[in-house]
Amino acid sequence: MEEVGMGFGLTLLAIAVILLTAKLSNLVENFGQPAVLGELVVGMILGNLIFLNVGFFELVKENEVITFLAELGVIILLFQVGLESNLATMRQVGARAGLVAIVGVVVPFVLGTYIVGPLLLPGLDSNAYIFLGATLTATSVGITARVFRDLGRLQDREAQIVLGAAVIDDVLGLIILAVVSAIVTLGSVSVLDIGWIALKALLFLVGATAIGKLMGPYIGAGFSKIQWGIGMKFVSAISACLIFAFLAEVIGLAPIVGAFAAGLVLDPVYFKHFASAKVIEDMREAVHAPETDSETRNRLERIIEHHSHHHVEDLIEPLSYFLVPIFFVRTGMEVNLASLLDLQIILVALGVTVVAFAGKIVAGYVAGDVRRAVVGWGMVPRGEVGLIFASIGQSLGVISEGLFSVIVIMVILSTLITPTVLTILLKRQDAPQDAPVPQQV
Amino acid sequence: MEEVGMGFGLTLLAIAVILLTAKLSNLVENFGQPAVLGELVVGMILGNLIFLNVGFFELVKENEVITFLAELGVIILLFQVGLESNLATMRQVGARAGLVAIVGVVVPFVLGTYIVGPLLLPGLDSNAYIFLGATLTATSVGITARVFRDLGRLQDREAQIVLGAAVIDDVLGLIILAVVSAIVTLGSVSVLDIGWIALKALLFLVGATAIGKLMGPYIGAGFSKIQWGIGMKFVSAISACLIFAFLAEVIGLAPIVGAFAAGLVLDPVYFKHFASAKVIEDMREAVHAPETDSETRNRLERIIEHHSHHHVEDLIEPLSYFLVPIFFVRTGMEVNLASLLDLQIILVALGVTVVAFAGKIVAGYVAGDVRRAVVGWGMVPRGEVGLIFASIGQSLGVISEGLFSVIVIMVILSTLITPTVLTILLKRQDAPQDAPVPQQV
Repeated sequence: MEEVGMGFGLTLLAIAVILLTAKLSNLVENFGQPAVLGELVVGMILGNLIFLNVGFFELVKENEVITFLAELGVIILLFQVGLESNLATMRQVGARAGLVAIVGVVVPFVLGTYIVGPLLLPGLDSNAYIFLGATLTATSVGITARVFRDLGRLQDREAQIVLGAAVIDDVLGLIILAVVSAIVTLGSVSVLDIGWIALKALLFLVGATAIGKLMGPYIGAGFSKIQWGIGMKFVSAISACLIFAFLAEVIGLAPIVGAFAAGLVLDPVYFKHFASAKVIEDMREAVHAPETDSETRNRLERIIEHHSHHHVEDLIEPLSYFLVPIFFVRTGMEVNLASLLDLQIILVALGVTVVAFAGKIVAGYVAGDVRRAVVGWGMVPRGEVGLIFASIGQSLGVISEGLFSVIVIMVILSTLITPTVLTILLKRQDAPQDAPVPQQV
Repeated sequence: MEEVGMGFGLTLLAIAVILLTAKLSNLVENFGQPAVLGELVVGMILGNLIFLNVGFFELVKENEVITFLAELGVIILLFQVGLESNLATMRQVGARAGLVAIVGVVVPFVLGTYIVGPLLLPGLDSNAYIFLGATLTATSVGITARVFRDLGRLQDREAQIVLGAAVIDDVLGLIILAVVSAIVTLGSVSVLDIGWIALKALLFLVGATAIGKLMGPYIGAGFSKIQWGIGMKFVSAISACLIFAFLAEVIGLAPIVGAFAAGLVLDPVYFKHFASAKVIEDMREAVHAPETDSETRNRLERIIEHHSHHHVEDLIEPLSYFLVPIFFVRTGMEVNLASLLDLQIILVALGVTVVAFAGKIVAGYVAGDVRRAVVGWGMVPRGEVGLIFASIGQSLGVISEGLFSVIVIMVILSTLITPTVLTILLKRQDAPQDAPVPQQV
């Protein structure tokens, strides 16, 4: 092991610090705040310790391994979300999700490109406004998915609409990015190119679902013949997740879309061939013991049934404990507090942020007979995808440093505010849906 | 996520391929071979696909992330081994382990430096022989630990002696490396330097054990007050592992020694404050149901007791499924089959290998009243530590390319042969120990 220099040991230390501080930050749950907010804030603090002359976390930001673990973390998270999502429900809400996605892309794009851009930042090149509009379109579903998951609300129709819309958003975002980049670099774009990107994305999603549904049972049965046991179950599930994420990236989609699709098609039922955890086996023995009375037997069988079916998720969970906090802390670390010191930039950013929020909240209102505010707010977080658009714009020379800071602040605010608002909205759920919404929060 | 280029997706694919092929290779267990052998061979095949013009795995070998995951894998493995080891047994076997370690270092060093070196490779600089001797000393405990663990034999006294001796070996190896490097570069070495290295290592091991024993219960109780639950349990266990590995590296020991120490002092009892898995909670309800008869109740309580106590290990296990095969496949990938094509080198290598094996097997004979062959063979694998010595020797200009190949072949053979021999020796265990050992295997 000694061949790895200090870099290896310090990386281990950094992971330990991230995991421990993230876990301690989850204390915010005791105050009704979402756990993910605590992790983002911890990330913001660690990422700005350089102002207290602590340089360690500047190295962490540049550490390729930590960056990879963070990216893998959000992949595992979306895989879990996919596992816990129901394909039937997703199909039911498909049309609604499509509508929400389209409105949630068109409204912010139009507002950004033709209204707030020219209004708040007059005199820029029209391509800059187009890029600003584009950065306002793409939903970053990681944060929303985490909030729904932490509150045990992934089965709600609102959650399924948001997840579906976010996947469609990603496809639309891909098309927009291609179009906008082509306009800036070539001055024009061919309809054929747009169609090709859209077709690839569609083929992936339909293909992944079909393959999963058709092949899943056979693959599961085949693998289980080779070797039973929990290890095989874990490896086949996680490999499916990684391969789908890879395929998504190959055709130009975000890897998390692939991971989500893998989770969606991997029905726990495919894994029923595999032997379950030892505790389940021990319980089975207890069930079949002659002295066990029938009522206890039934009760035990229900427990076994329940836990056998959820076992894939249970196996993924420790990996999630390890990787997911790294993603959110790492995301928080991207926030440069120094960018908040220029008053003019802050004011412009606040204007852009209002439009960014409004554009998605409006989209929630086409979601039909559900808690529309939950859907709308669920679409608000922008995260990395917006930042990617901005950095591509920067590399093409259309986005200035000032405009980049504006976009960063918008992303920060959408990331920090949404978890709290969503938590409040979801906790209200016990109130009757048609009753007037209480004003106090 | 799109900011990460093809590198990210291909890394995911590489991990999936490694995990799937590793799992399929575990089929060798059906033929009585150890699972780790399958993984090493898979690694050898993947790592040499370049000869079939498949260049992908050459990129994998250079991939920093995969290398990190592999190193983390062996850390997690040694942490698990530490968790499953018993500190009391380790103390009991301490003196024996020390003796085994010293003999297992001195004999190969003397044989390598003064006999096989000058005999098989005449005319080299005396420093080259010293380095050859040094590369023969350090036991690489990962493979042995894996075999003991796979066969459920970590509790055997032989396993505890080997583990203890391997830790002491690592400390001795550190001292030898410092001494040998000083002789080559400075022409001499001060006794003070040697003493200082030994003292640091001793302080770490004693300190880690003392801190763990004294503070563990309080830290566990403290953390559990902040937030209960499985996530906290997982994070505190894994963080302790990572921090101890970091500290070991800081004082110049192998990180795996720190991870092993962390596992050793982390008694599962410290975690009894934490809430257990949901299935355990559900079972508790079943136990307390009024209609459950007393015999079933007792049986269920035994299951609960058993699984509650092993829960830390269960939480670490999926991380182990994910990371440990990456280490062994990655180790196999280091083998360059082309180095096996030079007949003269092969012959010299076979001679060196015989000495390497004999030196450690002899050490087993001072292990006292246990199956000495198991202890001796358990110390045979050399792995990375030997390669590190060799590469340092190469960078100092005392080890030629030919001698390096010889050392690589010795490491390969010690890695590939040991698992099978150990498995055979351990499966013989049902035979009475004092009876004559049957000749057929």
